[in-house]
Amino acid sequence: MIIRPHQNWFFRLFAWHGSVLSKITFRLSLNVLMSIVAVISYQWYEQLGVHLTIAPFSLLGIAIAIFLGFRNNAGYSRFVEARNLWGSLLITERTLLRQIKSLLPDEPAVQQKVAKLLIAFSWSLKHQLRGTDPTADLYHNLTGNELAEVIASPMPTNRILLMLGQEIGKLRRQGLLSDITFGLIDDKLSELSHTLGGCERLASTPVPFAYTLILQRTVYLFCSLLPFALVTDLHYMTPFVSVFISYTFLSWDSLAEELEDPFGVSANHLPLNAICNTIERNLLEMNDQSPLPPPMKPDEHFNLI
Amino acid sequence: MIIRPHQNWFFRLFAWHGSVLSKITFRLSLNVLMSIVAVISYQWYEQLGVHLTIAPFSLLGIAIAIFLGFRNNAGYSRFVEARNLWGSLLITERTLLRQIKSLLPDEPAVQQKVAKLLIAFSWSLKHQLRGTDPTADLYHNLTGNELAEVIASPMPTNRILLMLGQEIGKLRRQGLLSDITFGLIDDKLSELSHTLGGCERLASTPVPFAYTLILQRTVYLFCSLLPFALVTDLHYMTPFVSVFISYTFLSWDSLAEELEDPFGVSANHLPLNAICNTIERNLLEMNDQSPLPPPMKPDEHFNLI
Amino acid sequence: MIIRPHQNWFFRLFAWHGSVLSKITFRLSLNVLMSIVAVISYQWYEQLGVHLTIAPFSLLGIAIAIFLGFRNNAGYSRFVEARNLWGSLLITERTLLRQIKSLLPDEPAVQQKVAKLLIAFSWSLKHQLRGTDPTADLYHNLTGNELAEVIASPMPTNRILLMLGQEIGKLRRQGLLSDITFGLIDDKLSELSHTLGGCERLASTPVPFAYTLILQRTVYLFCSLLPFALVTDLHYMTPFVSVFISYTFLSWDSLAEELEDPFGVSANHLPLNAICNTIERNLLEMNDQSPLPPPMKPDEHFNLI
Amino acid sequence: MIIRPHQNWFFRLFAWHGSVLSKITFRLSLNVLMSIVAVISYQWYEQLGVHLTIAPFSLLGIAIAIFLGFRNNAGYSRFVEARNLWGSLLITERTLLRQIKSLLPDEPAVQQKVAKLLIAFSWSLKHQLRGTDPTADLYHNLTGNELAEVIASPMPTNRILLMLGQEIGKLRRQGLLSDITFGLIDDKLSELSHTLGGCERLASTPVPFAYTLILQRTVYLFCSLLPFALVTDLHYMTPFVSVFISYTFLSWDSLAEELEDPFGVSANHLPLNAICNTIERNLLEMNDQSPLPPPMKPDEHFNLI
Amino acid sequence: MIIRPHQNWFFRLFAWHGSVLSKITFRLSLNVLMSIVAVISYQWYEQLGVHLTIAPFSLLGIAIAIFLGFRNNAGYSRFVEARNLWGSLLITERTLLRQIKSLLPDEPAVQQKVAKLLIAFSWSLKHQLRGTDPTADLYHNLTGNELAEVIASPMPTNRILLMLGQEIGKLRRQGLLSDITFGLIDDKLSELSHTLGGCERLASTPVPFAYTLILQRTVYLFCSLLPFALVTDLHYMTPFVSVFISYTFLSWDSLAEELEDPFGVSANHLPLNAICNTIERNLLEMNDQSPLPPPMKPDEHFNLI
Repeated sequence: MIIRPHQNWFFRLFAWHGSVLSKITFRLSLNVLMSIVAVISYQWYEQLGVHLTIAPFSLLGIAIAIFLGFRNNAGYSRFVEARNLWGSLLITERTLLRQIKSLLPDEPAVQQKVAKLLIAFSWSLKHQLRGTDPTADLYHNLTGNELAEVIASPMPTNRILLMLGQEIGKLRRQGLLSDITFGLIDDKLSELSHTLGGCERLASTPVPFAYTLILQRTVYLFCSLLPFALVTDLHYMTPFVSVFISYTFLSWDSLAEELEDPFGVSANHLPLNAICNTIERNLLEMNDQSPLPPPMKPDEHFNLI
Repeated sequence: MIIRPHQNWFFRLFAWHGSVLSKITFRLSLNVLMSIVAVISYQWYEQLGVHLTIAPFSLLGIAIAIFLGFRNNAGYSRFVEARNLWGSLLITERTLLRQIKSLLPDEPAVQQKVAKLLIAFSWSLKHQLRGTDPTADLYHNLTGNELAEVIASPMPTNRILLMLGQEIGKLRRQGLLSDITFGLIDDKLSELSHTLGGCERLASTPVPFAYTLILQRTVYLFCSLLPFALVTDLHYMTPFVSVFISYTFLSWDSLAEELEDPFGVSANHLPLNAICNTIERNLLEMNDQSPLPPPMKPDEHFNLI
Repeated sequence: MIIRPHQNWFFRLFAWHGSVLSKITFRLSLNVLMSIVAVISYQWYEQLGVHLTIAPFSLLGIAIAIFLGFRNNAGYSRFVEARNLWGSLLITERTLLRQIKSLLPDEPAVQQKVAKLLIAFSWSLKHQLRGTDPTADLYHNLTGNELAEVIASPMPTNRILLMLGQEIGKLRRQGLLSDITFGLIDDKLSELSHTLGGCERLASTPVPFAYTLILQRTVYLFCSLLPFALVTDLHYMTPFVSVFISYTFLSWDSLAEELEDPFGVSANHLPLNAICNTIERNLLEMNDQSPLPPPMKPDEHFNLI
Repeated sequence: MIIRPHQNWFFRLFAWHGSVLSKITFRLSLNVLMSIVAVISYQWYEQLGVHLTIAPFSLLGIAIAIFLGFRNNAGYSRFVEARNLWGSLLITERTLLRQIKSLLPDEPAVQQKVAKLLIAFSWSLKHQLRGTDPTADLYHNLTGNELAEVIASPMPTNRILLMLGQEIGKLRRQGLLSDITFGLIDDKLSELSHTLGGCERLASTPVPFAYTLILQRTVYLFCSLLPFALVTDLHYMTPFVSVFISYTFLSWDSLAEELEDPFGVSANHLPLNAICNTIERNLLEMNDQSPLPPPMKPDEHFNLI
Repeated sequence: MIIRPHQNWFFRLFAWHGSVLSKITFRLSLNVLMSIVAVISYQWYEQLGVHLTIAPFSLLGIAIAIFLGFRNNAGYSRFVEARNLWGSLLITERTLLRQIKSLLPDEPAVQQKVAKLLIAFSWSLKHQLRGTDPTADLYHNLTGNELAEVIASPMPTNRILLMLGQEIGKLRRQGLLSDITFGLIDDKLSELSHTLGGCERLASTPVPFAYTLILQRTVYLFCSLLPFALVTDLHYMTPFVSVFISYTFLSWDSLAEELEDPFGVSANHLPLNAICNTIERNLLEMNDQSPLPPPMKPDEHFNLI
C-alpha cells in the first residue's frame, strides 16, 4: 500500500500534491496581484511617507513559522493517532479471530459468524466517520434482522459491538467458553470499543477553532502585506520572492488544516476504504475462505480513498 | 458534533473567535494609543538622544515566540488530555454496560440500574469540574436515598463510583457474577476512577503560574515598546504594523491561557454538556430505551457548552 | 485547589511570582550595572577599536532561546510527571479501598485498617521525598509496632507497602479473598509500587547537570555582554532594553531549574501537603468516618505547600 | 551491535555517511553551477534592476528550518517506533518461550516446536516488510506442510501467528495448559499481533506525501535562488557559502526522507537481518541448542542490513 | 542520590562539567586560532575581494540551532528512557519480592532465593551493558552451578531470567503457587524481560549515525568560518565573541552525543553501579537481612558511576 509517486526528484518539483495546491491557488493569485500593485505604486506612496521595511516582517514571519510548526504538530499528531486507531482495529480483529480459532477449532460456523460481525464493524465505522450510508457494505455480513437493527440505531457501530458481546455471551452460556476464556475475548471487545470511541472523539473534536482563525488571519495578512515590504529592496523581483514565501506559508497552513480531519476523502486523508478492504481480506483468509475480494488499487493520481 | 463555522476563507478573516478577541481588545487599543504617541513624539525624543531600533526587538520577539510556542504546547496538551479523559469516559461506560449485557442478558433491571449510575457519574463529574449544582441532572438517575447520600458527600462523583462498586459486589454475592467476571467489571470501574482522578488533577493543578506571569509580562511590555522601535523606519505605518504584530502575540498568549483550563464554559473549552448528553443517549440506546433525549445543538455562534 | 491569583491583567504585571524573581534580582542588578558601565565608557573604548555589534548577539540569543526552550520542556515534563504520579496515588488508593469495600462489605475493621495504611503510605512518601521526619503524620495511622518498624527502616515507604501486601496476604489465607480477588488488589499494590519508584527516580536523577551548567554559563555571559552590543544603537536606552531582554532569559532559566525538582517547598513546586490531605479526606470519607480533617488553605501569597 | 565508526572527530568531517551524500551530490553540483552563474552574471542583471537581497531569504530559511525540524521529528519518530516494535518482538518471543519452559519443563519437543515457529515469525516479518522471498529462511523452521501453507498465503506472517495459536490451543485441549496458563501465553500472541500490525502500518502509511513535496520544493528552490541573494555581499565567496548552506538543508531533508521508511536496506535503515539473527540465537540458546548460528558482522562501511 | 554540586551561581560559571569540556577544548583552541588568523589577515584578503558577512551565518546558525535542538531531544529522550527502564527494574523487583512474601510468608528460603536471583539479574544487566566481567558481582548471589551456566551463556542476563522462570515454575508444580498466583508473578518476569530488552535495544541502536555526522560537520565548519564573518564588524573582539558562540554550539553538540549512549561511565551517564547497589539494599532490607551493603557515595567531582 506504499504510495510514493514521483520518485524522480526533478519531477517532484512540478508534481500535483492533491487538494492542497488547489486550495491555495486563489490566495497565491491574490498575492501576485498585490505584488504587482506594490511594484507599480511604491514610488508614489513612498512620496507620501508611507513606508514598509522588511525587518518587522522578518520578526513576524519567524513567529508565525513557529506557530505554524505548533499547529502542524497538532494536526499531524491527530493524523497519526487516527492511523494508529485503524491499525489497532486490524490488529484487534485478527487477534480476536485467532483466539476464537484457538479455543473453538471445531466450530467453523462460530468462526465465520464472528468474522462477519468484525468485518461489518470496520465498514460501519468507516461509514459513520464519513457520514455515508453503510447498507451496501453491511448487507453481506449481517443477517436481515441484524442489518435492520443496525440501520435503525443512531449509534450503528456500537450496536454491532453489542452484538459481538451478545455472541460471546451466548458461547459462554453454552459452555463453549469458560469465564476465563470469555474474559480473554471480552478484553478484545474492549479494545474495539477504544478504537470506536477514539475515532468518534477525533471526528467530533477538532483542534480549537481559534487556532485556525488566528493563524489563517495572520498568515493571510502577512502574505498580503509582504510585497509592500519587499518592494523597496527587490523591485521587479518582488512578485517572485513574495509568491515563493507565500507558497511556503500558505501550503503549510493548508496542509495542517487538512490533516486535522483525517477521515475525509482527499489525497492526504486516510484511505479508509483500502484499510477496510485489507481487514476483510485478512479475516476471510484466516478462515480459509476463497476467493478473497481483490485488494484496492490506487487511482491514476496514486491516491487511495 | 464537528463545528466548523465559516468555511469560506474570506469570511474567516473577519470572524469572531469567541472569548479570545474580547479579552485582548483592550490591550490592542492600548497598543494603538502607544503607536500614536510614538508617531507624534518620536522627532522630539530623538533629539534628546533617546533611541530605539528594531534589532533588539527582533531578537526578543523571536525568543518570546519560542517561549509562547512552549506555553501553547503545555496548554494544548492539557486540552487534549482533558478531551481524551472524557472520551475514555464514554468508552468505559459503554464497555461496562456491554459486559453487563453479555453476562446478565436476562436481568434488565440490573442493566438499567447500572446504566443510571453510569449516567449519574458523568453528569456529576461535569458539575464537580464546573462547580455547579448537580441535583437537577442526578434526580432522574438516582433513588432518593442515593441522591441524598451523593449531595451530602464532599466528593460526590467518587461516591457514585463507590455505589457502582457496591452494586457489582452485590451481584457477586448473589452468585450472578463469579470472581472472574466480577474482576472484568471491576477493571472498568478502575478506569472510571482514572478518568475521575485525571480530571480532578487537571482542574486542581494549572500550568505553574510563574509561566503565565513571566510570559504575559514580557509580551505586554514587548508590545508596548514595539511602536517606539518601529517608528523610525515606518512613520505613519507604525500603528498598523504594530497592532498586527501585537495581535499575533497577544492572541496566542490569550488562547494558551484559555486552553489551560479546559473545563470552563467559553467557546474554546470542552462542551461537557454535549458530551454528557452523548453518553446518556448511548447508554439508553444500548438498553433499547426510548425516546432518547434529543442531541444538543450548537448555538448561533456554533458553540456548544 | 485552583490558585489563580491576580486575575486582573494590569496587576499581574507587577505581581510577585514566588521564588523566581528573588533568585534573579541580583543578576538583574548586575546587568543594570554593566549597562551603566557600557553607556559611560562606550565612546572611550570605541576609540580603541573595541567594538561589539548586535548581529552576532541576535544569532546567539536565538540559539540560546531554542536551547532554553528545550530545557524548559525537560524541566516541565518532570513537573508534569511528578504531578501525574501523585494523581495516580490518589486514584489507586481510592480504587483499592473501593475494591475492599465491594469484596468485604461486612468487614469494617479491615476497611479501616487498609485505609490507615494507605494514608500512612502517602504521608510517608511526602516525607521521604522532602527529607523530613514522618513520625507526626504516621502516628495516627500505624500501630506502635508498625510505626517502630517503619521509622527504623532505611526505606520507610516501601516498608508500608510491604505491610499492605502482608495484610492482603493474610486476608487470602483467612479465605476472605480468593486467588482471583487477591490478584485484583495485588495489581493495585503494584501500581503504588510504580508511583513510589517513579517519585524516587525523579528525586534522585536530575536533568544532567551539564545542561544546567552550559546553559547558565551562556545565558549569564550573554546578558553581561549584551549592554556593550546594544549601546552603539541605543545610547541612554541601553539599560532599559538590556534589563528587559535579560529578565526574559534569566527568568526562564531560573524557572526551568526550579521545576526540575518538583518536590520542594517553593511556590512553583507541588503542594504535597495539600495532596496528602486530599487523599486522607477521600479515604476517610469513603469509610463514612467523621469529622474529616479540614482541607488545606493557601497562604496569603496564594501558595500551598 | 553498537556501530560507531570514525570516533576521531577530524576523520568524521570527511566520512562517508551512507546513502545520504550520494543522493544529494547531484543537487549540490547544481547549486555550485547556479553560484557560478550568479558570480558571473550579477553585475549584468543588477544593471537591469533585477535585485535579490539576503533579508527575505533569512526569513524564508529560518521558516524552512523550522518545518524541516518538524519533518525530521516525524521521520525520526517512525524510525524509533519501528525499532521499538522489533525490540518488542525479541522481548515477547523470549517471554513466550520462557513461559513454555516454566509451565512445561518436561516437554522439550513442545519447546522446540514453539521456538521454531517464533523464529519463522520474525524472518517472515522481515521478508514481508522488504518484499523479498522468505522460503530460504523459513525452510529450517517449518514442516513441509506448514511451509507450503505459509508461502501460499497472501498474509504469510499472520498465518504463522495463527499456527502458534493453534499450537497452544492444542496444548490446552491436551490438558497441558489450563485456561489460566493458556491465557498467559495467548496474551503474548496478542503482543506479537501488535508488533506485526504496527510494522505493517508503518510500511503502508508514509508521512503524508504533501509534506515531502512542499518541503522539497521549497528547499530546492531556496537553494537554487540563494546564490543570487548572496552574491551582492559575498562576490567570489558565494559558491562556498551557498554550498555550505545548501548542504545543511539538503542533507537534513534527505535524511528525513530516508528515515521515514525504516525497513529499507540503506545504511540508515534498521538492520533487520541482524535483529532476526539475534532473535534466532536467543531462542535457540534458551533451549540449550548448539552450535548457535554466528552473529552477523557489519561490513567494511560499518553497516549491518 | 541528588547531586547538585555548586549551588552558588557565580562558582557555576567556572565549574567543571565533566567530560564535555575536555572533549571540546581542542576544538575551541582551533577556533581561537582561526579568529587570530582572521584578525591578522582580513585587511589583506578584503583587498582580494574575498568577503564574508554575518547575514548568511545568522541564517545558518539559527538553522543549526534548530537541528541541534532536535538532536538534543533525541539524545535526551534516550537518556530518560534508559533511566526509566532502570527505575522500572527497581520497581518490578520490589513488587515481585513483595508478592512472594504475601503469598509464601512461611517460606524464607524461597524469599531469599528469589531475592538473590533478582539481585544477580540487575548486576548482570549492568555488566552486559558496559561490557565488563560480571563474575565478582554474581558470585555472592548465585550457586556454583548457576554461576557457571550464566558465565558460559552468550546471553547471561536472559539466562538468569530463565532461572527465575524455572524457580516459579517449580513452586507451581510443588503446589505453593496456583495457576492464578503463578500468573501474577509471571507478569512481573515479563516486565523484567521488557526492561532487559529495552536496555539491549538502546545499547545496540544509536541515533542514526548520519545525524551525528551531518550535524558535527556543519557545526565545525560553521565555527571555523565564523571568525572570518565576524571580523569585519568586530575587529579585535572577534576571538572573544567567536569562542563564545562556538562554545555554545560545540558544548550542546558534545553533550547530545554523550547522552545518546546513557550506559557509559562518564559524568553525564547513568550511575548504574549506584542503582544496582540501591536495588540490592532494597531487596535485602525487605527480607530483613542485615547488615545492608553501604550506599554508594559520589566521588570528589560529585559523580557516581
